[in-house]
Formats: sequence, C-alpha cells, structure tokens
Amino acid sequence: MVVVIKKGSEERQLNNLISWVKGLGLDVNRVDGENSTILGLVGDTSVVDIDLINSIEIVDKVQRIQEPYKAANRKFHPDDTVIKVGDNEIGGKNFTFIAGPCSVESEEQIVEVAKAVKAAGATVLRGGAFKPRTSPYAFQGLKDAGIRLLLEAKKQTGMPIITEIMSVAHLDLFADVDIIQVGARNMQNFDLLKELGRSDKPIFLKRGLANTVEEWLMSAEYIMSGGNNRVILCERGIRTFEPYTRNTLDLSAVPLVKEKTHLPVFVDPSHASGLSRLVRPLSLAAVGAGADGLIIEVHNNPECALCDGAQSLRPEQFEDVVNRVKVMLPLVDKKI
Amino acid sequence: MVVVIKKGSEERQLNNLISWVKGLGLDVNRVDGENSTILGLVGDTSVVDIDLINSIEIVDKVQRIQEPYKAANRKFHPDDTVIKVGDNEIGGKNFTFIAGPCSVESEEQIVEVAKAVKAAGATVLRGGAFKPRTSPYAFQGLKDAGIRLLLEAKKQTGMPIITEIMSVAHLDLFADVDIIQVGARNMQNFDLLKELGRSDKPIFLKRGLANTVEEWLMSAEYIMSGGNNRVILCERGIRTFEPYTRNTLDLSAVPLVKEKTHLPVFVDPSHASGLSRLVRPLSLAAVGAGADGLIIEVHNNPECALCDGAQSLRPEQFEDVVNRVKVMLPLVDKKI
Amino acid sequence: MVVVIKKGSEERQLNNLISWVKGLGLDVNRVDGENSTILGLVGDTSVVDIDLINSIEIVDKVQRIQEPYKAANRKFHPDDTVIKVGDNEIGGKNFTFIAGPCSVESEEQIVEVAKAVKAAGATVLRGGAFKPRTSPYAFQGLKDAGIRLLLEAKKQTGMPIITEIMSVAHLDLFADVDIIQVGARNMQNFDLLKELGRSDKPIFLKRGLANTVEEWLMSAEYIMSGGNNRVILCERGIRTFEPYTRNTLDLSAVPLVKEKTHLPVFVDPSHASGLSRLVRPLSLAAVGAGADGLIIEVHNNPECALCDGAQSLRPEQFEDVVNRVKVMLPLVDKKI
Amino acid sequence: MVVVIKKGSEERQLNNLISWVKGLGLDVNRVDGENSTILGLVGDTSVVDIDLINSIEIVDKVQRIQEPYKAANRKFHPDDTVIKVGDNEIGGKNFTFIAGPCSVESEEQIVEVAKAVKAAGATVLRGGAFKPRTSPYAFQGLKDAGIRLLLEAKKQTGMPIITEIMSVAHLDLFADVDIIQVGARNMQNFDLLKELGRSDKPIFLKRGLANTVEEWLMSAEYIMSGGNNRVILCERGIRTFEPYTRNTLDLSAVPLVKEKTHLPVFVDPSHASGLSRLVRPLSLAAVGAGADGLIIEVHNNPECALCDGAQSLRPEQFEDVVNRVKVMLPLVDKKI
Repeated sequence: MVVVIKKGSEERQLNNLISWVKGLGLDVNRVDGENSTILGLVGDTSVVDIDLINSIEIVDKVQRIQEPYKAANRKFHPDDTVIKVGDNEIGGKNFTFIAGPCSVESEEQIVEVAKAVKAAGATVLRGGAFKPRTSPYAFQGLKDAGIRLLLEAKKQTGMPIITEIMSVAHLDLFADVDIIQVGARNMQNFDLLKELGRSDKPIFLKRGLANTVEEWLMSAEYIMSGGNNRVILCERGIRTFEPYTRNTLDLSAVPLVKEKTHLPVFVDPSHASGLSRLVRPLSLAAVGAGADGLIIEVHNNPECALCDGAQSLRPEQFEDVVNRVKVMLPLVDKKI
Repeated sequence: MVVVIKKGSEERQLNNLISWVKGLGLDVNRVDGENSTILGLVGDTSVVDIDLINSIEIVDKVQRIQEPYKAANRKFHPDDTVIKVGDNEIGGKNFTFIAGPCSVESEEQIVEVAKAVKAAGATVLRGGAFKPRTSPYAFQGLKDAGIRLLLEAKKQTGMPIITEIMSVAHLDLFADVDIIQVGARNMQNFDLLKELGRSDKPIFLKRGLANTVEEWLMSAEYIMSGGNNRVILCERGIRTFEPYTRNTLDLSAVPLVKEKTHLPVFVDPSHASGLSRLVRPLSLAAVGAGADGLIIEVHNNPECALCDGAQSLRPEQFEDVVNRVKVMLPLVDKKI
Repeated sequence: MVVVIKKGSEERQLNNLISWVKGLGLDVNRVDGENSTILGLVGDTSVVDIDLINSIEIVDKVQRIQEPYKAANRKFHPDDTVIKVGDNEIGGKNFTFIAGPCSVESEEQIVEVAKAVKAAGATVLRGGAFKPRTSPYAFQGLKDAGIRLLLEAKKQTGMPIITEIMSVAHLDLFADVDIIQVGARNMQNFDLLKELGRSDKPIFLKRGLANTVEEWLMSAEYIMSGGNNRVILCERGIRTFEPYTRNTLDLSAVPLVKEKTHLPVFVDPSHASGLSRLVRPLSLAAVGAGADGLIIEVHNNPECALCDGAQSLRPEQFEDVVNRVKVMLPLVDKKI
Repeated sequence: MVVVIKKGSEERQLNNLISWVKGLGLDVNRVDGENSTILGLVGDTSVVDIDLINSIEIVDKVQRIQEPYKAANRKFHPDDTVIKVGDNEIGGKNFTFIAGPCSVESEEQIVEVAKAVKAAGATVLRGGAFKPRTSPYAFQGLKDAGIRLLLEAKKQTGMPIITEIMSVAHLDLFADVDIIQVGARNMQNFDLLKELGRSDKPIFLKRGLANTVEEWLMSAEYIMSGGNNRVILCERGIRTFEPYTRNTLDLSAVPLVKEKTHLPVFVDPSHASGLSRLVRPLSLAAVGAGADGLIIEVHNNPECALCDGAQSLRPEQFEDVVNRVKVMLPLVDKKI
C-alpha cells in the first residue's frame, strides 16, 4: 500500500500515522520527495481500512498494491477452481448451461421446462421460488412450495437445481438445493454472506447493480473466509445512464475478473437486457468474452401470447443458442 | 399507464394483452394512430409489473402515469408527515440534528460524545453497533454490547438514539432503540423491510448507492404497506464516475423527493464525501436544498492525531455547523 | 408524443399549451382521467423540444412515441445501409476489419503496419494524425504530415484509409481520406457534424463516453439531415463507476442499435479497455453481439519492449483474432 | 508517479521501462518488495502519458502523485484568482450573479430582461446566441444577430455580457463580448480550447456531462497553457443513472475543486435540473457549498403561460433568490 502525504504536513502527525500503521503489524518505508512524502506499507495490508487512511488530514492519496482479497485471488491460487455439482464440473475448461423458468409456477410447468432444457443441453435447472421485487405489491414467488416443486423436477430429471435465497431465516429450506443463488440486491448483505460461508453448498454470487469488480470479489471473500470455497460469480448487468437497456451487461468484466480470480464466471443474458430477442446475441458475446457458463430463462407457454417476447426464450430458441455456442467453444478453449 | 404498441403488431397478440390487463381489474382505452397504437390503462396500476409489459414483443414503450407508490405518495397525503421521537418532532417545519460517533467504542467515549453533541445542539444520538464493512477482515462493530452502551448514553443524557440494523435476526436487540436505521446496502433487503413494516419504531431509510428516487420510495412503501408509516428518508451520496469524492451527494434529489413524498428527508454529509473538511459546506448546501435534518459524525479524540481529518468532526466543529445552520433556517422556512 | 398533465392544473394554462402545440402543426387528442389529463400529440413530433415541454409547470411527464430521428431510423428505412469504400462493402451481411497503428509515426512504420494488417485480413487502414489528448502537454499527432504518410501507405497497399478529424478548419486536408472519423469527444460538436453533412465521404461516428444511444443517433441525424447518408456508427465504451477497465464496452447496445437504425455498427475493442490482452476476448464478444466490423490497433515494434502489452496488438496477434472471427461469422449470418 | 510492477516480470522488460522513463528526463527510484516491485518516478511527470504506462504488460497499476495540471493548480498558486470584468471582480471573497434569458430573441426582450436582472442584483448579462441542440431540427439560436442584440443591451445597461461560442470559425463575432462561454459538450473540443488560450478574454468553462474534475481542470490547463489565465469554472450537473432530474448537480465538487485550484467556481442551477421550481433550493445549496457565483436563467414573458415553470425564473423570482443569497453570504465568508 502506498500512502502519499501532503506537502507541509506536520512531522508530529506523520509520526502518529506511522506508529499507528506499525501497530497494525506492518512495516513502513518512508521516501521524502520534493513535493510530497510517500509511505510504502509492507505486510498483510488486507487488514488496513483504506477509507480511514484516505480520510486522514495529512494524506493526499492512498493506493493499494496488494488486492484486499486473498482466498479469491488468482495470485495465491493460480489454478482455475473447478466445482463439482452432480455430474457437472463447473469452471476450468468446462462450459455449463443453467436454464429454467423465471418463477416456479406449478409442478407441470417446472417439470416440463426441466425436461425441455435438459433435452436442449442444459445440465443445471434454475427456477425462482423467493423473488426479490421492487414493489411490495408484486408477486413474491411460491416460496417454500416453489422449492418443493423444484425438488420434484430434480427427482424426475436428475438435474441439480439452483434457486435464490433472500434471508438467513430460510436457510433450512435449502437443504436439498444443489446451488444457492445470492441475488444482485443482496450482494452486500454481509450477514447472509457470512452464514453462507458456513454452508457446504456452492454459492452463485450475482454482481450488484452498482458494485465494482473489487467489491464483488470482496463479497466472494466473505463467503470463502468462512470456509466455503465453492463460489461461482455471475455478471448480470450494471446500472449506467443508458435508458434503452434495463442494465448494461459488463462483458469487459469477464476476461478481467478471470485474471483476478480463479473462480468460475457466468453471465446472465436474460436479466441484463430484459428483452428475449437480445438473449442470443448477448449469449454469443458472453462466450466470446470467455464466460464459463450461461444462466438463461426459458419458459414453456407457447399458448400464452403475453409471454412471447418476454425475457424468457422458448425451448427451441434456447436450443438454438446452445447449438451456436457449441460451435464457438473451441475458439475460446472450452468444451461442454 | 400508457402502453405504446409496435406498428404492424398482430391483432391477436394485442387482444391477448388487452384481455390480460383487464384480468388485472383495469380498464383499457385504445387509440389507433398512424404509426402505432396506444393503450391507456386506467385503475390501480400499482399492481402492474412494468418490466413484464415492457418485455412483451408487441410493446414499444410503457410509461407510468400514476407513481407505483401509494402510502409514500404526497398526491394522496399532501401534508408533511411529522414524526415524534422523545421530545423531537421530525419533519414539517422542524429541523433536526442527529450526531454521534461512527462506531460505539466504549462507555466513556459514547457518553462523552453524547454530552458534547447535546450541548452543541443535537437532539438525537447516533452510533454504530453493527457495522456493514466491504471486507470480512475489517472491524464489524461491538454489536449487542454497542447497543447496551448507546442505551447507557441515552440514560445519562436523555437523548433518543438511532443505530443501524443489519439482519432480521437481531431485531430483539433493538427493543429500546428509538429509531432503527437501514443502511444503503440494505435498502433493497426486502425481507428486512417487511419485518420493519411490522415494527412500531421510526425507520431511518438510507438511499442505496445506485438506487433511483423511485426505488427508494418503493422501499419506503415496503415498510409503510406493512403498517409502519414512520419512515425518515436519508440521502447519503450516489455512485458516479467521479473518483475524487467517495460518492456524489445528490442534493438535487432533496427538493424533488419532498415534492413526491410527505416523508421527512435528511442528508448525511459525513458519509457522502468521507472527508471531514467537506462536512461544513455540504451541511450548509443540504439546508439550502431544503433538508429536514442532518446526521453528522462527531468524535471526541483530540489526542488521537490519526482521527484528525477523518470524516468525523470534533465537537467544536460540529457546533460551528449548528450555529451557521441556525442562521440559514428562516431562509428555508424552517425552525429548530 | 404523450404529455401527462398534473392533476388540478388550470384550464387556462392547459389551453395555452394546446394552442402552442397546434401552432407547431400537430394535432392534439385530449383524454381526461381521474388523476390526470393526457394529451396525445399526433404528427411530426421530431420538431418538438421535449425538454421545453417537460419543464412546463403543469406537465407531469412527457414520453416520445415516435423517435426524434428520421433519416437514421430503421422504421422508415428497413433495409440495411451498405456503404461502398474502395472495394469494401460495409454493413449488411458484410464483416469488415479496420486496423492500423494508434498514431502515424513515420513512413516506414505506417507502410509496414499497412502491409502486415492487409496480409492478416484487414481491408481498411487506420492511423491517427490529429490526436485528441486530455493533456495539453501530451503528443498531439503529426497532423497534416501524418495524413500525407497515410496517403503514401494507401498508394503502396491500395487500402482505403480512415483517420480522425478534430476541427472544421482541417477539412481540406481530408480531401483524399476515404473515411473521416469523428471521435467520442466530438460526438456532439454540432458545428463539425453539420459541416460533415455537406461532405460526400463516409463518416465514422464514435459514441461519446456518456452519450445515450438516442443522442448518438441524433448526431448521425445531424450528418444525414445535411445530405450525407453514409454514416458508420462505432461503439467504443462508456463511462461508468467501474475503475478496473478504462471504459465499459456497451455490447448490449450493438443488437439494440441495429434494431433502431439501418446504419452499420462497428466496435473498437482497443480503446474500450486500453489493455491489449482484452482485445481478443472483446473482439469475439463484439462479433457475437452482431457487430458489422471491428477497428483494432496494431503496431509493428517487436523490438520495443515498452509497447508489448499496450492497447495495440502485434500483427500476428491481430491475425489470430481475424482467424477466430472468421469461424464465428456464419453463426451471426455474416461473411467477409 | 508510482508504478507498480507485476510479480514475476522479466528484468529485461523492467529495464526497458526504466530506460524509457529516464529518457523523458525523470529520475526513477526502485523498491523491490516481496510481491511486487515499485518504481517511484520523480520530476515533471505532467509529460508522462499515464494511459500508456498503464497499458504496459508488466505494469500492475500506476498512480499519479503530482496532479497533471500546473497552471490551474492551487499548490503552485495558493491565492485565489480574481478576474476583473467591467466593474466586477470575480472570485476571491466576491460573489457574482450572472443572469439573463436562455436564448436572445429580440431587442425588446433582451433589453427588458437585462434591465430587470440588473435591478434585481445581477452584474453580468447572459443570453444564448449560438445554441447547441441535440436535434438538427431544433432552433439553433439567432447567431450573429443574437450577439448584436446582446451588445445593444450592454450599451443600454452598462452590463458586461457572456455568451457561448460553438466554433473557432465564429471567434471574430466575439470581439466585443466580455466573457466567452464554452458549453459542456465542447469541454474537450481541444482545438477550440487552444484557440481560446490565445484570447485575452475571460473564458467561462462548463464541466462536461461525464467529465471528471481532473479532466475539467486539464481543459482549463489547455486554455491557461496558451497564455490565458482568466478561466472561470462552472458546475452544471453530471450524468448519472437517476432519471427524475435531467442531470445530477455535483455540489460536492464545489468545495473540492476549490481546494485543487485557485480559479473561481460557479454553479448553474437552471440547466442542472431543467425545472424552475428547483432553481431556488439549488441556488441556496450552491452558496452553502461555497460557489463564487451563480448563472441563472431569467425570462420576461408573464403573458406566455407556456413559459411559466420552464427552467427560467421570472425577474421577481430571481430577485427573491438574490435576497436570500445575500443573507447567506457572511456564513460562507463572501460578499457582494
């Protein structure tokens, strides 16, 4: 960590700062330049509160050299993490399709979609039971009943299942769920993350709408520092000034995050745009960017004209995406 | 709600949409123009999922006319909400200072700061017991012990206290807390909001770093729809591209939010910038913008050089802010 | 255009607004609802200043139904625009590689890079002569001498050339340039756009760092309304809160913009990230998203260790990108 | 400047970088740590291209210690710049009101508004002659005729005038204008800035919609490095994700920019929000934040109901703002 001290700062204040830093167990190298003094902090700087130092009167700037995350850091774990879920190996050279409906609605629906996406090439089934909704007046999901229906679909198809958790209080309901999803709005629900760090299940951690890559990796670190190393990251779009798309899918983040961490990185093209007709191009784009997998919404209501064109694909559209992706995989050194 | 239908859409699909909307209990006015058809949806549109409609293939655009929030909406509650807390009346023509340390550290510290800010003009005491931290390796607060120390300071000074809640699981610990704060990162922790809707305590709801004014009011609506109408809003800075300040304090939001809602709106100048030397100008700016109160960090460590210049003011600096604000209040039709 | 009038507005003010709108040659349909009155404005609303209407006291909201751009609008020109440049056909089913150095430095450099990128598959040569630089102390390009060197490389290789214009005053120097580039910082330099509307050369219009898709298309409209229909759009990254990448490449914009307009859409993966090692994944991502071409920086300084890893690729790295893209093209219904 | 080198970089590449830096006339201090090597670059680093260094393969991070601007930097010019314009002294302890109509429309209009705002307390007259408009179909201003009308109003009232320039080609028309305004969209029109650096007139430089404080100061530096030190900065709102306001007025920037530079900083509350009813609260907020002046739109069309509520105030509303601001000035150590 490099701390730049303002020109003309009092020696007394500077010595106070140096003593305080040494009290944290760090060494300090001091270099006096013409216009400023620089302190180089050496040691385990992940314990240092950068905001606190930045706010000290005599400090001009602070820059981390060592990233604040350790367990998630590729520097210390150069090999890709590969996570076993049922017969799936997620991460490394493997490419994985997760698919299923936005919300679980009925046994007939979830089983039918599960069979359809399995036939098309998906190997993990998704479905929302607890639904985070901006409005208290909107449908909040089937909750525990939804999880029971997912487990029924798992029984009938053999597919592992993933569904979202919204509260520590519901954790018991997830005993037979294969992958627990943390939604974008809970990415910094630190109490939830800590609890999931004590779980033995893979955690699918979506990036928050306005969270930096570093904050995202720090949330992974919360889970991993509790002992659970099986974290899968998922980019789903960030908030920008552009109103035409619901969110801006940050595909530049994918190759960058994969440099920083050894964890698998997925992309959700359905939620990013909110438009089903953008799912195919954004899926191919995500594969080109180097994603380890896709999570895609698929519905089975051909008779429901309303659903045409929502963010969900029909099974045959999903199959078309899978087939095109398969052609691309050798270009990005992946296989299915 | 106005729904614009794409030119050349099939009549069948349009009729499906109209039937579906009518099934929600709304009336539909249809106007056919040269380049598009427009549907006017009349009735209680707060139940309509605008994202769902927007994602329908034949829909070009959707625009709400009625805001999606009702209990928080000034249209239906034109008078300012005034919230009684101890001897304080918060909102309306009243201006309120909340002050105290960032974190509760010891009985001596919290009692001393409480007495100092009371003498300077604060009427509510703040102090962090549960601290949301980006890093799992950072100090997470004294937790329940911190709340006990706050209660001791309340006993000695008579000031009502406010502190942040991070999990539904801790709610019992807040039984004697006067105002419960929901932090920016939990603004859309919907399970927590629902639970606080069943509380009889005022809720101090900070705006999320990347949340729109409408989402903020919808989070207030979550609490209010549960029966708890005592919500205080607090602007604390939003995330933008600008790196010089930690956050961009959105003071334009203050007069605008006060048009939209009858709830009190506070500003937190300490967290927005993270720099104590900006607290005074941003406090005066917030008063100019029409805020109903300020929440300011104050510390009492004159001997700790490290703390000089952090985002906390010393008591005499806080008193200086209070005195200047008092001169301004008649200009904005407020009193203390 | 739909104008929502506030509840309780004076009839006099409403009539003034209606008269004013009719004076613009538009028809007005008025619908009185329970909580608000809605005006539907019918006719050529591209002449209406939406900001002006939005700022009127009695107006609650305004929503365009018709886009404000006409010449650039796919609704009125459903077929893809294909632009002939030398032997190239740009747009439609064609995919085009533009490549060359960041700045033109010497005849030897530009001719050598031109030959290398031509051999690798590029069919248009890029090179900066006028360089927009944030700092007045940074190298500003070889200017007219740089253009002369580009023309020499064109003569020796037969490749058409593209280079950036920064001022109307330099237009004469571009007489033999094949495509004129407008940089991101000049996207709303309206005087320059108007002048280019009188040119007979294709204009390569980069998206501004913080400009919406609609503003970008309005800048294309400036050029087209002057009579020059040969506009090529180029996405090069937008400004967001994320500090890890220089800009966030908005690939969601590509399929969306291609729905809105018939103009070709390129992607610049070199400038978006500023990191050469991200050029390959972002190039493949751009192709997946449906881009009509790529503009890529290539350098020829194998002996200059400094340049390794800058945002420019070496020729053999560029060739590798070309070869991978060629495999992808059938997946996105494109050919080279 | 501090350059962090990646662990495991080749010594050959590192030496190449060090030689290159020394070739720029800088000294290099090298410190080898456990996980990385750090280079401290000492000397005039304003000539160093930080993007270039950042993009080098062996570089992990770069951090400036010295700001890249010199003439605009308060470190080298600690005293406030005060700019004489007619009888006005702008900057320092002075507070200045600039007011006038959005666009110049007629002699009667501009003279009448000029007299009204002068009576109310303004000392500089604003009025748009060249109007930057997003749409080519919108009114583009009276241009040279508008400037002639402004000069007529100047003659009749004695007020100095400010108006916006959009192109170098129009510079001759500004011979008798007192202050030349550069609009937000031209903040990085570097050719225009260079030309204005050769002018002897004060330049009123608005911040770009998505430009950082550092870029804004670098644009001031463009003008100042040409020899023109009379630059006035103006904050007018930045682009964020929030749709309720047209822009987010970044008032946190005001005290911060005044730390970084000795130049006067104004605020434009009219354009930031686009809503006249927000002009008063945002004006008071700007004064609280420490602005050196305000530029406010005022119109004189009491009979034009359409104009009610647009972003312009009526003269009596402007006078009310002036009177309230006068009460505040002692609180921020300013006078009028």
